[in-house]
This record gives sequence, C-alpha cells and structure tokens, in this order.
Amino acid sequence: MSLPPPGGGTAPGPRREIRPQEARADAAPPSFQEMWRQLGSIGRHPGSGGYRRYAWTGADTDCRAWFQEQAEARGLVHELDRNGNQWAWLGDPSAGDAVVTGSHLDSVPDGGAFDGPLGVVSSFAALDELRGRDGRFTRPFAIVNFGDEEGARFGLACVGSRLAAGQLTVEQAHRLTDADGTTLPQAMAAAGHDPDTIGPDPGRLARIGAFVELHVEQGRALDLAGDRVGVASAIWPHGRWRFDFRGEANHAGTTRLVDRRDPMLSYAETVLAARREAQLAGAVATFGKVSVEPNGVNAVPSLVRGWLDSRAEDQATLDTVVRGIEEAARGYADAHGIHLDVVRESFTPVVEFEHALRDEIVRLLGKEGEERDARLRVPVLGTGAGHDAGILSASVPTAMLFVRNPTGVSHSPAEYAAEDDCAAGVTALADVLEGLACT
Amino acid sequence: MSLPPPGGGTAPGPRREIRPQEARADAAPPSFQEMWRQLGSIGRHPGSGGYRRYAWTGADTDCRAWFQEQAEARGLVHELDRNGNQWAWLGDPSAGDAVVTGSHLDSVPDGGAFDGPLGVVSSFAALDELRGRDGRFTRPFAIVNFGDEEGARFGLACVGSRLAAGQLTVEQAHRLTDADGTTLPQAMAAAGHDPDTIGPDPGRLARIGAFVELHVEQGRALDLAGDRVGVASAIWPHGRWRFDFRGEANHAGTTRLVDRRDPMLSYAETVLAARREAQLAGAVATFGKVSVEPNGVNAVPSLVRGWLDSRAEDQATLDTVVRGIEEAARGYADAHGIHLDVVRESFTPVVEFEHALRDEIVRLLGKEGEERDARLRVPVLGTGAGHDAGILSASVPTAMLFVRNPTGVSHSPAEYAAEDDCAAGVTALADVLEGLACT
Repeated sequence: MSLPPPGGGTAPGPRREIRPQEARADAAPPSFQEMWRQLGSIGRHPGSGGYRRYAWTGADTDCRAWFQEQAEARGLVHELDRNGNQWAWLGDPSAGDAVVTGSHLDSVPDGGAFDGPLGVVSSFAALDELRGRDGRFTRPFAIVNFGDEEGARFGLACVGSRLAAGQLTVEQAHRLTDADGTTLPQAMAAAGHDPDTIGPDPGRLARIGAFVELHVEQGRALDLAGDRVGVASAIWPHGRWRFDFRGEANHAGTTRLVDRRDPMLSYAETVLAARREAQLAGAVATFGKVSVEPNGVNAVPSLVRGWLDSRAEDQATLDTVVRGIEEAARGYADAHGIHLDVVRESFTPVVEFEHALRDEIVRLLGKEGEERDARLRVPVLGTGAGHDAGILSASVPTAMLFVRNPTGVSHSPAEYAAEDDCAAGVTALADVLEGLACT
Repeated sequence: MSLPPPGGGTAPGPRREIRPQEARADAAPPSFQEMWRQLGSIGRHPGSGGYRRYAWTGADTDCRAWFQEQAEARGLVHELDRNGNQWAWLGDPSAGDAVVTGSHLDSVPDGGAFDGPLGVVSSFAALDELRGRDGRFTRPFAIVNFGDEEGARFGLACVGSRLAAGQLTVEQAHRLTDADGTTLPQAMAAAGHDPDTIGPDPGRLARIGAFVELHVEQGRALDLAGDRVGVASAIWPHGRWRFDFRGEANHAGTTRLVDRRDPMLSYAETVLAARREAQLAGAVATFGKVSVEPNGVNAVPSLVRGWLDSRAEDQATLDTVVRGIEEAARGYADAHGIHLDVVRESFTPVVEFEHALRDEIVRLLGKEGEERDARLRVPVLGTGAGHDAGILSASVPTAMLFVRNPTGVSHSPAEYAAEDDCAAGVTALADVLEGLACT
C-alpha cells in the first residue's frame, strides 16, 4: 500500500474505508511487552535507575529511531514534522478528520518509565488489538510522538506541540537555551533537524478530527477509588513563578549575624509559607528548583533563586494561593533587608477538554465496561499536570485517558503501573479508537 | 648578589647581617598603589565585579607571574615549592630562623579584592618601607604566596599550606576533584606543575622562625572600636557538616500534599533552626551551599543537600550549636518521612596563636603607636575565618595582623579597606618585621 505524503487541502474528503490489514507488514509487530523492553534500555541512568531522555540528545535520537521502527513494522508511513514531532500514518492524512493518538517519549531528569512512553506504546498496541478485531477504519489514523514535552533541557514544556499550535513563537523558541548555553536551534541542528523550518503548522492541526492521549495517572485518584482507567475532565490552571531573593555575599565565619543580609533565611520561610497556603486552599505549591550564588560553603549567599510551581482546581483558588505566598515572602524579605523580585515565568489557564468528545468516550467505555467487567467504571477526573493534549485542545477536539498508578508517584524512577492496568488501558484505547474511527 | 637555592641543613647558622639594599634592583619597584592596580585586573569577572581566581586556572597563573615579577623587581630570589606555594627570598634560607610574611592571591567565587592580596601587596610594600628606613636584616626573610587558600575549586581550603605541613596527605589530595571532574593532580599538570612532587615539606617549615600574615579583617570588630590595625589572638574552631535530606521525587502538579515526602520542607526548617541556635549561643551558623535533585521546577525533590558552616569562640559552644541544629533537623525529617544523613566534612579545632610572638608584636606596635599616633591602639581579637597562618601555627610560631574593614563585608565584591588603613597596615607590618628581623 502506498500512502501519499501529508499536505494539500485540509477539507475532509469523502470517507474511504481503510482496512487495518491493508497496512500490516509481513512479520507480527512487537507485543506490548516487547516494545516496553526495547524502550526500557534507552536513556536509563545506571546510577539513579531513572531516565534522562532530553530533547535532541542521543537518547532522544534513539527513542525516535525506535518510534520509526514501530511505525514501519506496522506498515504505517513515518513522517517527521517541521517542529520535531513524529507521526505514523494509516490512511491519507490529506483526507482530513483524522483520529490521532499518542504521547511523548522524552523524560524529566531521572524520570520514570511510564510518563509519556505508556501512551506511545499503548497506541501501537491498541492498533494491533484493533487489527485483531478486524475493524475497518473510516477515517485516517495516526500515532504521534510529540517532541520535547517535558521541557527538561530548555525549561519550557510541550515545545513540539506549542510550536505547531502557534502557542510558542519562533522568536521565543530561538531564545530557549539549555544549562550549557546551547540554544534550541543549535541543539536541533546538532541532531540533524533543520531549525529554520519550525513554526505554526495550522494545516496539520486542521486535518485532525480528534486527538486522544493515554497517560499514566500522576496522582492516586484512580487507585483510591479502585478504578483502572479514567477520562480527563480538565487540566488545572498552573504556573511557574521565579522568586529572586537578593542579599549580600559575605564571609560565613566572620560576619556577625546582625550584620548579615542572608537571602537563604527568607527563602526558607517562603518554602514553608507555600506549603501552608496550598494546604489551606486544597491546592499544590512546590519549590523544587533552587539556584544559589555564589553557592559556597563558607559564603553567606548574595542570591537565592527559587522556583514556585503552583496549581489549583480553579483560577480564583490559584490566585489566592500565589498571592498569599508572595505577600508572606515580601514580609520575610523586608524583615531581613532582602530585595525580592517575583517573576511569573509561565502560566496556563484551566483547560476544559471538549465535552462532546469526553462524553462520547465515557459512553464508548462505559458500555463495554458494564457488559464485560464490573470493575471497569470510568470516572472523569481533573489533573494538575500539563500535557500536549492540553496544548492541542485549543485547536483540536482533544481527550485524555488515565491509567491507574498505585502509588501516585511520577517524575521519579518509582513511577509505576501494573501490567494488568496497562492492558486495561490498551483495551480502553482500542475501544475508543474503534468507536471513533472504525465502522 | 647571588643567593643559593633553598635546601640543605635546617639548623640556624650564625647570624649574618643582610642589608636590604644589597638586593635592590636598579629601577624603583612599584608602589603599593601601582601593585594594587596591576593585580586589580587579573581574574575580575565583568558581570559581577568580583574576582574568580581559582587554583591552577589562567587567572591563578597570571597572579603567580605577577608575584614573580614583584620578587624580581626587588632583587628577591623567586622559588616555587613542591606544593605550589611561591617564595621570594632575601638572604640564605638554609641559614634558618627566617622571618616570613605573606598571604595568598586566589579568591572565592566572585570574591573581593582584599582577602589575600592585601597581605601579599602589603608584604612587598613593607619591605620597600624597611629599605627606606635603612634597616639591616639579621635573619633570612621571605614573602610567600600560598597556593589554593580559598579552596574555591576543589572544596578544601589551604591546600598549599596543608600539604606542606602534612595536614593533607598525598592520597587525600589525589582525591580532590573540581565541579568538572578534574582532579587536583590533573589541574596541576595542566598548569605546568609536576603533581608527583607534592607532599609534606618539614625541612622548609623548620627553617622558618616566625610567620606573620597580614589580612583584611572579615568582621567589624576594629571598626566598632575605632582601630585601624589589630593582632589575632585565635581562630575560632569551625567545621562543615553536610545535611542530606532524602525524600521521594514526584510530580509537583499531581501529587497531593499528603502523599509527598518533600525534603525541601525539612531543609527549610533546618535553615531557620540553624540561625536560631547560633543566635542563642553567640556563634555563627550558615547554610550557604545547596544542591537539589532532580532540581526541576515541576518535580518534588528526591534530595536536598545543604552544607552547614558553623563557628564559635570555643569548642563547647560550637558543639552545643551543631548538636542543637542536628536534633532539630532530625525532628523535622521524621515529621515529613524524610531520611536524614549528617556528615562532618571538615573540622578545625581552635587555633591559639603563639603567645610569645603575639605579645612581642603587641609590644612592638604598641610602643610605636603611643609615640606616634594615639589612634594606633592595637587590640587583640579572635576571628572566625581560617587562614594559612592557622595551618602553619602547628609547625611554626605564627601571628596575624588585621586591617580595618569598615563594613565587615568579605568574600564579596563589596569587600573594602580604606587607603589610609591599608597604609597603616603596611607601616605596622614594617614595624613588626623590623623588630623581628632587623638590628
């Protein structure tokens, strides 16, 4: 079977029936377990046991090669888009109204195995399951691997989807720099990707009729309720604020306490205030990243820079939490003679996933669940994490499925989902794709 | 005049009168102000305005070349010892019972201009002043620049003097590594110094009858009392303790507060406890260096490592302070499910400078002061800072002079001493050297 390259008109053409079998390669593609094993060795740090798959590094290249192999093993047409996102197509993308699933393969520093890869591996496995059911696709279908979702290297999450959706301008992207001073365009070029082609890709997004991202849950809501799979209602509004506490560098051995302007004290008080404010509001607030100057054992710091990450169910609550933390920090800083600057580095308002698509997914899964397995209730839940699905939701009808995480631990080597639950996730995704894209 | 190289017997020989004029070069050597200007441009960071003169780097090489030029401009014999310390000799070192002065030229990260260089520049200027007085040296005399005093690169202070005094073994020195993974021997070799020659140098120390180090004060004791110059009584006992708070990495957006084991909270509480304990005891305690893993904005940390620097007038007080901080930290860690390890990384007991030499210096300066300038009282004061003089005091009669620092700020670009006070320091040092080494 020969597929034309993507491009051309974006208006949906007449529906053509696509049989999954058409595209099947001769050898059976790798099973879920085989794919999991293949990915498991890429970018794993032997010391921490966690993954270090950062955008445009060698580990990232290895993940991308793996994705292309999976596409080709299933007879899908592999395509790398201008913004570094990978697509594996079944059917003619130019026909429009495509059903797309997928996630990302990059990781946070010392991240777990599931955040991102579970969605990509489950997408390939769900296609295999659909082929086993002998369903017939009536819409073009693709699996996607979004580039640089975690933002571990350049400090901004979802770069691939943001660029495509026009939520990150080319100028802003050019200013992104990693810890070694390498810019995003330099990193792309070093990995063999032409950085001059990045930018909004509305034609591509217009050809997508629905995007469904499966993801390991990053909290314990499913586990506490005893459910294996859930559907996302919304992504909480969230933001990052940089707190710069500036004092005066001084000798730690000879400077009397009363003569000090030590910004570490105000920082410490603010860390505790953040926890208190979040607790009172039922929100979350975290200082997880710190940078100190000069960062010498025998020096009172001149600068302590702490990054606050805060999220809440709604905007008003988040505003209350962040305002409370900032007011407390200003009081502490004033008391120690510290100069405080607070800069909002990023902000994402609440993302409500499209209700029609969400309700359709709940209907598709609920029906199956009642008939087959009483445990497969499908709760609808909010999440504090950002995702490519959240970025795309401004341009495309978008939904998310979550798979149970028994400890809720994420962004850590301890991140985990049981094999049974992963299998339930694959089946749920196959059910959704069948309902959306097949006769 | 031709001086034999150092070496040979260490027993003091018969005193030979050495006229400073013998060694004078033809051109007048640079004045204090000229020397200060020459040094001022070496290793200065244009952004911070502070100095980055780290051991065995280019800036260090430039400082060493400057020292050799100063020695040669005054007809002194320049010698680089096995441990990377520089000596400028007047008279025959092998005669023994030498009077030595000097300090160091390296800096902390973004350090000030005075900590170290003031002692070296004042030593050359004091020799020039003595020559102007036409004094006659009856003992060998040297000016020294100790290598790697601040420990900014390899994390251990006073490496040059510690190696010479046998307070740092060759094996320990081989294990020192900078932030880029370069070992001390590799760094020495890269700078052209043979690392295979490092190690104890008791013969050299045995030839020294007295070492006097002039240093900018790193507190405000002289300023508060209205004095320009002081004499050191003792260096406070001090140490460094590493506090490793280990929790569990997790997603900052999706992990409920009650499910977290966030080590940043225990760290913050411990920072505040350290200030409280130090305040109660009249000591100092500082958390000036922090390292966080994974240090991501959207990740609850798995590890927060903070370094405590604490010092007090006496051992019992220091013990009380550090015990109080550690007990508090254990309580906080337990409350948050955090595992805490506390490791003492270094410790230096109280250093009492030799009483006979100290009293002699007070007598020499006091007499001059009463006759010449009523303001030149010479208080005797303790200090919280470590110095090469403290290391040498175990092997050699050692003393220190302090020059007033109006703000007390040190280890910062704002470190300062007034020109008048620097001049008073040079005169005081010349008086001391004249009294100790001249007829």
